[in-house]
Amino acid sequence: MDGQSYELCMKILPKTYVQQADDAKSAARKSINLLLEQKRIPEVGFSDVLIRCLLSDLADMDSSNFPANCGAGEREGRIFSGLVADRHFRMSHGVGRSGELTAVQPKAAGSSIIAKLADSLALHALKIAGAIHVATCFVVPSCTGMTLCLTFLALRKARPSARYIIWPRVDQKSCFKSMLTAGYIPVVIENIMVEDELCTHVSEIACQIEKLGAENILCVHSTTSCFAPRAPDNLPAIARLCKSFGIPHVVNNAYGTQSSKCMHLVEEAARVGRVDAFVQSLDKNYMVPVGGCLFASYDPEFAQAVSCMYPGRASAAPSLDLLVTLLSMGVTRYKQLLKERKETFNYLKYQLEVLAAQFQERVLRTPSNHISLALTLSTLDEDKCTMLGSMLFLRGVSGARVVPRAAKQVLEDHAFLGFGSHTNTPSVPYLTVAAAIGMTNDEVNVFVSRFEKAFAKLRTPSTAPADRDVDTTAVGD
Amino acid sequence: MDGQSYELCMKILPKTYVQQADDAKSAARKSINLLLEQKRIPEVGFSDVLIRCLLSDLADMDSSNFPANCGAGEREGRIFSGLVADRHFRMSHGVGRSGELTAVQPKAAGSSIIAKLADSLALHALKIAGAIHVATCFVVPSCTGMTLCLTFLALRKARPSARYIIWPRVDQKSCFKSMLTAGYIPVVIENIMVEDELCTHVSEIACQIEKLGAENILCVHSTTSCFAPRAPDNLPAIARLCKSFGIPHVVNNAYGTQSSKCMHLVEEAARVGRVDAFVQSLDKNYMVPVGGCLFASYDPEFAQAVSCMYPGRASAAPSLDLLVTLLSMGVTRYKQLLKERKETFNYLKYQLEVLAAQFQERVLRTPSNHISLALTLSTLDEDKCTMLGSMLFLRGVSGARVVPRAAKQVLEDHAFLGFGSHTNTPSVPYLTVAAAIGMTNDEVNVFVSRFEKAFAKLRTPSTAPADRDVDTTAVGD
Amino acid sequence: MDGQSYELCMKILPKTYVQQADDAKSAARKSINLLLEQKRIPEVGFSDVLIRCLLSDLADMDSSNFPANCGAGEREGRIFSGLVADRHFRMSHGVGRSGELTAVQPKAAGSSIIAKLADSLALHALKIAGAIHVATCFVVPSCTGMTLCLTFLALRKARPSARYIIWPRVDQKSCFKSMLTAGYIPVVIENIMVEDELCTHVSEIACQIEKLGAENILCVHSTTSCFAPRAPDNLPAIARLCKSFGIPHVVNNAYGTQSSKCMHLVEEAARVGRVDAFVQSLDKNYMVPVGGCLFASYDPEFAQAVSCMYPGRASAAPSLDLLVTLLSMGVTRYKQLLKERKETFNYLKYQLEVLAAQFQERVLRTPSNHISLALTLSTLDEDKCTMLGSMLFLRGVSGARVVPRAAKQVLEDHAFLGFGSHTNTPSVPYLTVAAAIGMTNDEVNVFVSRFEKAFAKLRTPSTAPADRDVDTTAVGD
Amino acid sequence: MDGQSYELCMKILPKTYVQQADDAKSAARKSINLLLEQKRIPEVGFSDVLIRCLLSDLADMDSSNFPANCGAGEREGRIFSGLVADRHFRMSHGVGRSGELTAVQPKAAGSSIIAKLADSLALHALKIAGAIHVATCFVVPSCTGMTLCLTFLALRKARPSARYIIWPRVDQKSCFKSMLTAGYIPVVIENIMVEDELCTHVSEIACQIEKLGAENILCVHSTTSCFAPRAPDNLPAIARLCKSFGIPHVVNNAYGTQSSKCMHLVEEAARVGRVDAFVQSLDKNYMVPVGGCLFASYDPEFAQAVSCMYPGRASAAPSLDLLVTLLSMGVTRYKQLLKERKETFNYLKYQLEVLAAQFQERVLRTPSNHISLALTLSTLDEDKCTMLGSMLFLRGVSGARVVPRAAKQVLEDHAFLGFGSHTNTPSVPYLTVAAAIGMTNDEVNVFVSRFEKAFAKLRTPSTAPADRDVDTTAVGD
Repeated sequence: MDGQSYELCMKILPKTYVQQADDAKSAARKSINLLLEQKRIPEVGFSDVLIRCLLSDLADMDSSNFPANCGAGEREGRIFSGLVADRHFRMSHGVGRSGELTAVQPKAAGSSIIAKLADSLALHALKIAGAIHVATCFVVPSCTGMTLCLTFLALRKARPSARYIIWPRVDQKSCFKSMLTAGYIPVVIENIMVEDELCTHVSEIACQIEKLGAENILCVHSTTSCFAPRAPDNLPAIARLCKSFGIPHVVNNAYGTQSSKCMHLVEEAARVGRVDAFVQSLDKNYMVPVGGCLFASYDPEFAQAVSCMYPGRASAAPSLDLLVTLLSMGVTRYKQLLKERKETFNYLKYQLEVLAAQFQERVLRTPSNHISLALTLSTLDEDKCTMLGSMLFLRGVSGARVVPRAAKQVLEDHAFLGFGSHTNTPSVPYLTVAAAIGMTNDEVNVFVSRFEKAFAKLRTPSTAPADRDVDTTAVGD
Repeated sequence: MDGQSYELCMKILPKTYVQQADDAKSAARKSINLLLEQKRIPEVGFSDVLIRCLLSDLADMDSSNFPANCGAGEREGRIFSGLVADRHFRMSHGVGRSGELTAVQPKAAGSSIIAKLADSLALHALKIAGAIHVATCFVVPSCTGMTLCLTFLALRKARPSARYIIWPRVDQKSCFKSMLTAGYIPVVIENIMVEDELCTHVSEIACQIEKLGAENILCVHSTTSCFAPRAPDNLPAIARLCKSFGIPHVVNNAYGTQSSKCMHLVEEAARVGRVDAFVQSLDKNYMVPVGGCLFASYDPEFAQAVSCMYPGRASAAPSLDLLVTLLSMGVTRYKQLLKERKETFNYLKYQLEVLAAQFQERVLRTPSNHISLALTLSTLDEDKCTMLGSMLFLRGVSGARVVPRAAKQVLEDHAFLGFGSHTNTPSVPYLTVAAAIGMTNDEVNVFVSRFEKAFAKLRTPSTAPADRDVDTTAVGD
Repeated sequence: MDGQSYELCMKILPKTYVQQADDAKSAARKSINLLLEQKRIPEVGFSDVLIRCLLSDLADMDSSNFPANCGAGEREGRIFSGLVADRHFRMSHGVGRSGELTAVQPKAAGSSIIAKLADSLALHALKIAGAIHVATCFVVPSCTGMTLCLTFLALRKARPSARYIIWPRVDQKSCFKSMLTAGYIPVVIENIMVEDELCTHVSEIACQIEKLGAENILCVHSTTSCFAPRAPDNLPAIARLCKSFGIPHVVNNAYGTQSSKCMHLVEEAARVGRVDAFVQSLDKNYMVPVGGCLFASYDPEFAQAVSCMYPGRASAAPSLDLLVTLLSMGVTRYKQLLKERKETFNYLKYQLEVLAAQFQERVLRTPSNHISLALTLSTLDEDKCTMLGSMLFLRGVSGARVVPRAAKQVLEDHAFLGFGSHTNTPSVPYLTVAAAIGMTNDEVNVFVSRFEKAFAKLRTPSTAPADRDVDTTAVGD
Repeated sequence: MDGQSYELCMKILPKTYVQQADDAKSAARKSINLLLEQKRIPEVGFSDVLIRCLLSDLADMDSSNFPANCGAGEREGRIFSGLVADRHFRMSHGVGRSGELTAVQPKAAGSSIIAKLADSLALHALKIAGAIHVATCFVVPSCTGMTLCLTFLALRKARPSARYIIWPRVDQKSCFKSMLTAGYIPVVIENIMVEDELCTHVSEIACQIEKLGAENILCVHSTTSCFAPRAPDNLPAIARLCKSFGIPHVVNNAYGTQSSKCMHLVEEAARVGRVDAFVQSLDKNYMVPVGGCLFASYDPEFAQAVSCMYPGRASAAPSLDLLVTLLSMGVTRYKQLLKERKETFNYLKYQLEVLAAQFQERVLRTPSNHISLALTLSTLDEDKCTMLGSMLFLRGVSGARVVPRAAKQVLEDHAFLGFGSHTNTPSVPYLTVAAAIGMTNDEVNVFVSRFEKAFAKLRTPSTAPADRDVDTTAVGD
């Protein structure tokens, strides 16, 4: 309905009622126009009705939805199933054009606006989270590892002789694979243990750079968010090294935007040294389904180069999910979620310490890690550690990981001792737990209560392993 | 409702009515179980109600939907927005595990079944389409170009010294980019013109292989579906060459599964020579939104290797869309769609010939291309050719592409003369049109009528170019 | 999105794309405005997307959806369940005000427009169906019987001494009850048999009027649509009588708008005599769920009086369903449905005659009834007749009714012999079948095939009545 | 998916995952079966997903949804529009049969179960609300006034000579109309003022009964919920009178189930005297859209008689809305809503007293009315009173009613002085406000703030009546 429609309504109803309705509607219209103008997350989240309305109007802008459209090409956005059309809000053309993710797609003006808005609101979100100087970002409809891989591939052109990527060890398969898939040789930098915490071995990085030769190194690939007892990498120190050696620096910030600590490391690194890009998972940070990643950079030109690496037109699903979510959240709720996560982390830490005291175990001291915690399982033998993992899984605790001391894993040609513990020499088996965005204190309580029962049961000598056996110790999935 | 529910209903209603309802329901139950057992496309498509029901039951199998689930990790499938949750049928965990696309995801049994079914039904679809000996396939939640890129990267390990990819020219940016992104040097094989048709220069391929050395060549990258007047590549000849030289052969079958001709080329090539993989776009062949690709192979081991290249967990969206679509379609409707496309192609060809006669133009003779056709624009000068493209676009004709004679394009360091025409020496400007799956004769009629008016207008000497100017000549988007 | 939104989009995208989208959208805008202006069924049906969009805009006009609304009364349209809100498109205030069904509801401008449009489009539909001189109509959110009852109650005031309603017998419980519920004594006029057909005994009506005294008679209550072998009442003759005696005439046109024959009877009766009102079921004529009735009249004043009889605010559901349906149908499809029904009736008649010949039965000759047909079951004994009904029901044939010869039914104090057959002296048991709007020839074929099998089985002497027993002979449900 | 489906899933996935999913699902299955067995509101509300799932399974039980159904009657539940089908969860057959609202509909087993469950859960809700001895209840798909009307019509048979209904005055049009529509003469009993409160004039009722003769009186029609300063009727006293005179007693409990006070009056009246029926609005008490009423009785036989008055098959919409809402609410949330309403009422009262003190007005002392409150407007002249109503309406305050002193209204032949104030001699103009179920303290604050501004503006001498004029003083809509 447009202005004329309201006029016509006045012939059906008393004018006053129509005017009142028109007034009421103007708030919605203003919200939409403010969004299109500022391209920022609204202070207060949009209602689902308003979001639906916006998406429907945008979908109408895609040529495949023009009433008079006639598709004479090989890719005309036809959708067979009504269920599928509905779930994509009738948008079928994806995002990007000719292999440039951020380009406007001529057949799909509405989808293009959605992609632009998603990127723009994501930039706003990064700034709220702490990356206040970030220059640009865009959604990549691939996992974080794939996005890291594309980033490496984009660096290749400028560094044709490079064969190595320097990588402070973090025991997560995808990020390791991202380097192999891109065709590079990871140079694993073992962490150093500072009290309980596994920290970046900065001098060893410098050492390796000198040994291998800067021009043979594609980049340093560092990590912020990780499982305790590993600490986020010392990004500023790495960034300074990269700057002085002229080596690119790519940061895996997988689930780091939910922690002001991680974001501060990124910002500080960019201030004092070199950060070419930092990438983060959409689902882990923004509570959307798995499927997308946010590539961010302080260098628009390099970002553009990465955007051009994607050889084709891409799924619009992650952009759409992110846009809907940020619109629905609003700045207020997003900030609140960040604050709540911090509080839940503290609550979790406190509760783990209570558990530790009760069972003669210890919460590892990892002051740099503000997302994940590790509780020792030193009073259980190796079998029982594994069994604990299964028991928790079968009792509906997902995400808590048992890390036994003896794990060894071969990834392609690289053998990792103590895989899962981020070190060749883990001193004790432990359980990691994380307080991720959206977790509540209630969930912490449920976790604690289930852990308590399972642990107590395992410590009772006669316990028969009645539980079904499940492989849940694997990390990095 | 389960068996007990129906029993309980009999205390509320006369038994007969409940029994009758239970009988009626058993058909639906049988359809579901047959699907789970055979993992094939049903003969007759499922209703949307049944599909919804199945998806809801499967979603309930994901741990993030367990009523008692407690997420203590960094990736727990939490979804903030109800709109987003709904559109993903409450499934958030994506597909794959630890960087293996086809692995089962422990947290997401339901999503994993969806992924398995999608792959299995896709295999069935490929066989229906003509690839009766294909061994395996899986959905890649990336564009066709990205999937080609992953395929090239997967070949790297076995061919460490390879630097080149042999590529019979096809003027589409994404597939060219797929090689650059993977870090290889495309060796462009110019096509040879046979009458109007641009055909594979097989002997030149052999020549280049010998010149560069087989061990330095990663693979031959051939193409089936393409715009007229280019013909599908001579796959059997290429496959024979690849076999004899021991070089992998990767086929870009972008929108080829809709044409029995393309599928026959793939099958024949696999029979007489070597085909390592053939990849196809989901949206172009199966009428789903842009976002996914189907990787297929005659070699399960190589397929597994490619599946392991994806460094992380991936979007479930393309698998879900494909599954829903194939369930909704059923074998009957899919076969009918294939048949109708063939008929529409013939109808389009006939209508273009009528137009050609009317305007003293010519439909280029391209007997090998069964999807796309080219109509000469020899009576228009270059400006008017471009204008024709704009006019058609503004009149709601999408996908028809004007290919002027003079286009030149530089992609990275490669300069292409006559870009869009697949040859350095195009003889005449022309318009390409395609009859893709889902197109109807009615759309052909609309196209013809709009073309007729636009063309007539351009041929009138005094026509002022009143139309807005649009850049629509670009191909390969 | 409004005009300004499109301007803002031009800062995000090339202007041309936005203009093209805006152009494409204008068709939708025009359709909506034409609807609001003319309040007629659109020639071509609206898409579901457009209907949703309209409903959403109208819902925004209800005060309960104003963002700043503050409800301080006892009825504020709050909806607890999101599922419920969604299914009513967020409209909760119902229709009407202070007990006038057609009044505008101040709190609910949007709902009021929906009600007005529904009534207006329904009037259009009645005219298309043949009642070209009908003056007014409105949706009553009650069944046909209740609407007849309200109509009788509305007549009371002007005829305070009336105690009787003259009613040519039609064996359907609801219409009989409508008179009892209103507190009147039905004067049953037995039908006369003309060959196979049961026709209005016009002279007996005249006779009864004179006997009881016109002032003691509330109205004559006649019927158009009915089960064969009853014929539609002779409306013109009744109308003439009513006119000459000054007695109101209320027509039960339950499912008559789907038959031009019934509509012609109503029109002709209004032309030559008196018709105060004719009422029709929404579900039976317009393919919507059960729940509403369309009251129509040639006398706007009397219609207004009936509208004022409903003592409260009413459900908007039937108006909404009707509006959505007529918008979705469009004039073209509605006319086509009417035409198809006629053809299906003829096809059904032909098929029944084939069946009759095969089984030595007869299709009763009922030339006046253009909706329903009766097939004799003279070769079955009474038990088998009943069993045939059960067998058809259990084989998924609904709506076919077996009318055995011996049925007797007491409704309140009135005993009906041969209930179901519209006569005290039915000559033969039979089965009635109807060709209602929306029925297809395919369904006729299915019916015939199932009937054939069941009948053949019953005629085989040894048939054990293995089927579950069901009471399905009751008519008038 | 059934048991066999899970078995089949075990061939696709590791058994453990499937078992875990099956375990998780059993909670849902148990909830459904408990509901079907006990037919009571669940303690904790069902999720929307579970409700949808249940409704879909029930819809599958309706014959119109049987895959092999063949409709050969005049009413086969065909639905033209997918939008309409969806919003009714594919159920089209309504409720009831042959004019009995509570009868099972053979063609619609699922719809019938929904109706039965809705009635049964409603009974549970009434008991929670305080009517612990109520015997039976059912949903009537009509407004409260229409249901009162049907109740009166059902009483007619046993009281053939009755012409009057005794009615303690309450200025609400619908309930007055309900008597006129049923054809009875209301005998209006003026209220007596006790301090500020208008109370039942019990002795005048006795007086009128004796004067008119008990046998000439159909029933006493009393009211619980009403606008202050009217008090709920003295139900116990009326019930005693009715019992001793042998006169039926019908209670209009329009929005009384949300107040334990009203429910207590009904229960107490039934204990000490006669209550034949009490009726309540669904939308006002259960937060569903307008359209239904709940008829309740301590006498199952009379309830059955009323159920049989409805002459036809009825809309299932109100039953469905109520069922979904009560399932979604659960006992816990329902009790909480009742408690919150009580608290909001107290908060509203307190805030009105603050306002009153501020503006030299008074909150009328109405200790018996626990839902509605009245604030005097004695410092405004009549014009400004009216203007206040308009101003509040235009500022988005709905439901607050200005009652000027001078209103007079003629309803049919009955002239009411001081209409809206429930008395011929209102002493002061006032504003009524109610705290209905679902209202929040925040809304109270918004109301107070808007009232404050509007009132202050009106008290400023120079105020030009710039506001649009709206008729919002009418009560009883």
